[in-house]
Amino acid sequence: MHAYRSHTCADLNASHAGETVRLAGWVHRVRDHGGVLFIDLRDHYGITQVLCDGDSAAFKAMEAVRSEWVVRIDGTVKRRDESLINPKIPTGEIEVYVRDLEVLGAVEGELPLPVFGDQDYPEETRLAYRFLDLRRESLHRNMMLRSNVVRSLRNRMWDTGFTEFQTPIITASSPEGARDFLVPSRLHPGKFYALPQAPQQFKQLIMVGGFDRYFQIAPCFRDEDPRADRSPTDFYQLDLEMSFVEQEDVFAAIQPVIQGLFEEFGGGRRVDADWPRIPYAEALLKYGSDKPDLRNPIEMQVVSEHFAGSGFAIFAKLLEQDGTEIRAIPAPTGGSRKFCDRMNKFAQEQGLPGMGYIFWREAEGGAGMEAAGPLAKNIGPERTEAIRQQLGLNVGDAAFFLGGKPETFEAIAGRARNVIGEELGLTDKEQFKFAWIVDFPMYEKDDEGKIDFSHNPFSMPQGGMEALAGDPLDVLGYQYDLACNGYELVSGAIRNHKLEIMYKAFEIAGYPASEVEKRFGGMVKAFKYGAPPHGGCAAGIDRIVMLLADTANIREVIMFPMNQRAEDLMMGAPSEPMNEQLRELHLRVIPQE
Amino acid sequence: MHAYRSHTCADLNASHAGETVRLAGWVHRVRDHGGVLFIDLRDHYGITQVLCDGDSAAFKAMEAVRSEWVVRIDGTVKRRDESLINPKIPTGEIEVYVRDLEVLGAVEGELPLPVFGDQDYPEETRLAYRFLDLRRESLHRNMMLRSNVVRSLRNRMWDTGFTEFQTPIITASSPEGARDFLVPSRLHPGKFYALPQAPQQFKQLIMVGGFDRYFQIAPCFRDEDPRADRSPTDFYQLDLEMSFVEQEDVFAAIQPVIQGLFEEFGGGRRVDADWPRIPYAEALLKYGSDKPDLRNPIEMQVVSEHFAGSGFAIFAKLLEQDGTEIRAIPAPTGGSRKFCDRMNKFAQEQGLPGMGYIFWREAEGGAGMEAAGPLAKNIGPERTEAIRQQLGLNVGDAAFFLGGKPETFEAIAGRARNVIGEELGLTDKEQFKFAWIVDFPMYEKDDEGKIDFSHNPFSMPQGGMEALAGDPLDVLGYQYDLACNGYELVSGAIRNHKLEIMYKAFEIAGYPASEVEKRFGGMVKAFKYGAPPHGGCAAGIDRIVMLLADTANIREVIMFPMNQRAEDLMMGAPSEPMNEQLRELHLRVIPQE
Repeated sequence: MHAYRSHTCADLNASHAGETVRLAGWVHRVRDHGGVLFIDLRDHYGITQVLCDGDSAAFKAMEAVRSEWVVRIDGTVKRRDESLINPKIPTGEIEVYVRDLEVLGAVEGELPLPVFGDQDYPEETRLAYRFLDLRRESLHRNMMLRSNVVRSLRNRMWDTGFTEFQTPIITASSPEGARDFLVPSRLHPGKFYALPQAPQQFKQLIMVGGFDRYFQIAPCFRDEDPRADRSPTDFYQLDLEMSFVEQEDVFAAIQPVIQGLFEEFGGGRRVDADWPRIPYAEALLKYGSDKPDLRNPIEMQVVSEHFAGSGFAIFAKLLEQDGTEIRAIPAPTGGSRKFCDRMNKFAQEQGLPGMGYIFWREAEGGAGMEAAGPLAKNIGPERTEAIRQQLGLNVGDAAFFLGGKPETFEAIAGRARNVIGEELGLTDKEQFKFAWIVDFPMYEKDDEGKIDFSHNPFSMPQGGMEALAGDPLDVLGYQYDLACNGYELVSGAIRNHKLEIMYKAFEIAGYPASEVEKRFGGMVKAFKYGAPPHGGCAAGIDRIVMLLADTANIREVIMFPMNQRAEDLMMGAPSEPMNEQLRELHLRVIPQE
Repeated sequence: MHAYRSHTCADLNASHAGETVRLAGWVHRVRDHGGVLFIDLRDHYGITQVLCDGDSAAFKAMEAVRSEWVVRIDGTVKRRDESLINPKIPTGEIEVYVRDLEVLGAVEGELPLPVFGDQDYPEETRLAYRFLDLRRESLHRNMMLRSNVVRSLRNRMWDTGFTEFQTPIITASSPEGARDFLVPSRLHPGKFYALPQAPQQFKQLIMVGGFDRYFQIAPCFRDEDPRADRSPTDFYQLDLEMSFVEQEDVFAAIQPVIQGLFEEFGGGRRVDADWPRIPYAEALLKYGSDKPDLRNPIEMQVVSEHFAGSGFAIFAKLLEQDGTEIRAIPAPTGGSRKFCDRMNKFAQEQGLPGMGYIFWREAEGGAGMEAAGPLAKNIGPERTEAIRQQLGLNVGDAAFFLGGKPETFEAIAGRARNVIGEELGLTDKEQFKFAWIVDFPMYEKDDEGKIDFSHNPFSMPQGGMEALAGDPLDVLGYQYDLACNGYELVSGAIRNHKLEIMYKAFEIAGYPASEVEKRFGGMVKAFKYGAPPHGGCAAGIDRIVMLLADTANIREVIMFPMNQRAEDLMMGAPSEPMNEQLRELHLRVIPQE
């Protein structure tokens, strides 16, 4: 017989009754039922109940074991009494009567973290003892989910003609807008490599190198400041690139992959097959976000005309300034003062002076509909009714109003829309709804009024060279995001493969050709020697798994995550280097004041 | 019609005759046949011949294009004349008459590297213009091979119940005997992360975390000094680990994966299914190497007895010293003075005084067999005949002899065995022959006579605690390598999961418990809380692809390799950091004297 096991802890059922078997695993739980000892023996595959009594030679050894010891047992498979069958687990028909027990790995002292029970524990403890935390059912399940998701993504990519290539991890800086992690070179003192923020340049070079339909499950490294929902060091993306394509070709390639994945792992939640294209400007207006949650049916509208010159002085005055607007968030079924006041308070907490509202109720005495709220009184019944009609609202509904320059309130309006959708139960959580956000602007003004790239500088501007001759703020890019349930899942672009357009695009953002050549030398050189039109995108794997696992904590879907201070508490990273190492790298640490 | 293509350059055949099509790709070759222009148009998928003459509106545009320009053409598919059909390519039955041509990406100036023809070019040029080099047929084929090999490995692992997990890349030092690449932490000034030399500790922690049958196509990072056949920065391995296993379980898991892979991609070369287990000591004796090339049938033998007290004073005297031996390399069909002298010279070039030899020939006048060479004369006919009989040699064969302490000549004997096998045509190159090298010693004496680990310190010593009580140099480990055609393809071990044995094993090598806890804190902590017996191995992906692609240059199987000075000539890495970056990292570069 094998030294450790004849079966796994998920293998045995009634058909094995009477067989002598050997099992190995962790002691999940020990129970003493008056002289009969029960152990739930757990391994990667499942749980089997084993037992023994004083008649067994193993009784003494079994009395000594505790939770999370690793043991090997020999015993006989017995059918359980009908009344004791556990239909929830595959081995629920049987138990194993133990005749021999060997301790393969004991536990020293107390467990810092119990495995059985899955109860909440401080995250720092969980991270320091990750190897215990991983034994718990929920993390074990999440890790298996992640692994299966990545496998499925790979297979789906191969099945649609993509080929996976690995790109360098120790490489040159690839400016993606975040901070690089640097790696000092020992052979070239004073010089540094960088870990790639994304394989952006390499995947473009693969296209220039004559390949087509590349993909990679790619590690990406960004030295980011801590934030709850992202890893402070690295993350994985499904990275892809295609030659001789336009925007819709990329959409057609990735939709079946993502949609199929969500159908496979979504746990029965509906996966909408209709992926609308929503221009960036429209997304901001309707949803207050470029990653709208379309499970929420609320769409905001511009209602400026009803407030211009109205008796509501605040809005009327606002509208006299250039670039201002009044927008409404319709809130079907939100027609109570209590709800409206709560939402008004929400807006105040978010930093706005408040959110005006109107709600419609049955008039007292059954005299039809009545619009309530101070705003309605100020603008009068006609304007109020026009607003109601524009928004398609009725008795029992409400509408909220925000005004000013859109950039000052748009994001808060978006958050208010989310909260309203949730609180009123309008957002149907049992589904995944996708949309392509398209037509991103190429440029924006930074705080000092300087024109800069608003997203990826390598995107092809719509209209090419001609468009770049006009107002930069009017230029749209062939750049797109995939939004799903309020998250950005995918981001991509058709690339600018024409050197003269690239120089011009950078010049507008204030970078002379010399700077472009210095920072993107490899790509500039490549574009001189026959570059094909190409484009692609990248999908965030951690985010996808989080959505599928229904968790908002990224550390629940990573095997060995850093904490939010970018430390590995289990392995003790980062740590102080040896002097010898610094000497070899020709580096000195500057003491902090 | 699609903006760039209706078909790829591998799609069209006689069934498309008469159709209007659109193709895009690179101009592989232009030929002007007296007013008719031919272009071999190439994309990722294949090559299609397109042509036009003065009757076409595209003639002028087509006259202007040069090698490696990217173009889009519209045209009509025509069947070729029977005599012009090219059966070597899928599109060889047709050509496309061009009516419209658009340049999508031109080439500025001269190509630094031609794509057509695959002729030899200096490697530095090839690396600086890797995107051109990759367009060449051989590199394109190698990259596709590598990608398919990795895919096949993954599928084979999944198919046998393994699950892929990703382990951290920015992490703590994992001492594997090589130098770490360090990554300075910005959030923790003066502290550094390390890139993993291998996921060794993490995969063991995954086992302690309750998983089973883990694998990963894992990037590994070692700051190595340059060597021709390895990457100076990183490499990939198929890393795997299993719980509740012994050595033979690991062999049984990996053999079908590797064997199947070589059958799939070996290009028809035979793949031997018999993988013998050869103890380390036996491998050194018989083959002079722990990664023997078993395609070569030569096995060395100890022949000391025939030289002890013989008339060959050099060997006779040598044998009076402790620990010395005389070993013979039999060389069937090597029986000529010319060959024997050449091999003697080879040994001298390798740093030995020379290699004695005997060869057997027909005696003059047909009087039977005669042993030739000075050695035969010195030891006399009886000893010579005894040697011949022991080695099983005959007329036309030779034998070479080396003497001394084995460690002084073993490696050279191994190389001589290789050369003899090759030169005599004994090594059958049309096959892959594998063997597990087992029973590696746990310890060795270093140059100063100190006991140190000879391989992986985490391996379980055979005999456990008891064995460690004896002479350390006698302790063997459950440690194993897979040799194939003279290379080490796989290396692995059953791990030491018992803390008390681990402390003892390290103590023997001079590391106190405090040092073990400091250097391997995460693993030590984990082993206190229920560690299962486990083991695994790792297979070198770059090496496997090199064997399959039949190349000795690792840069032929990596998409974007470093040169041998660990520089990326295309991207310009490593490079000088910005002062701002160093400031953020609290680092100063020490100027070189």
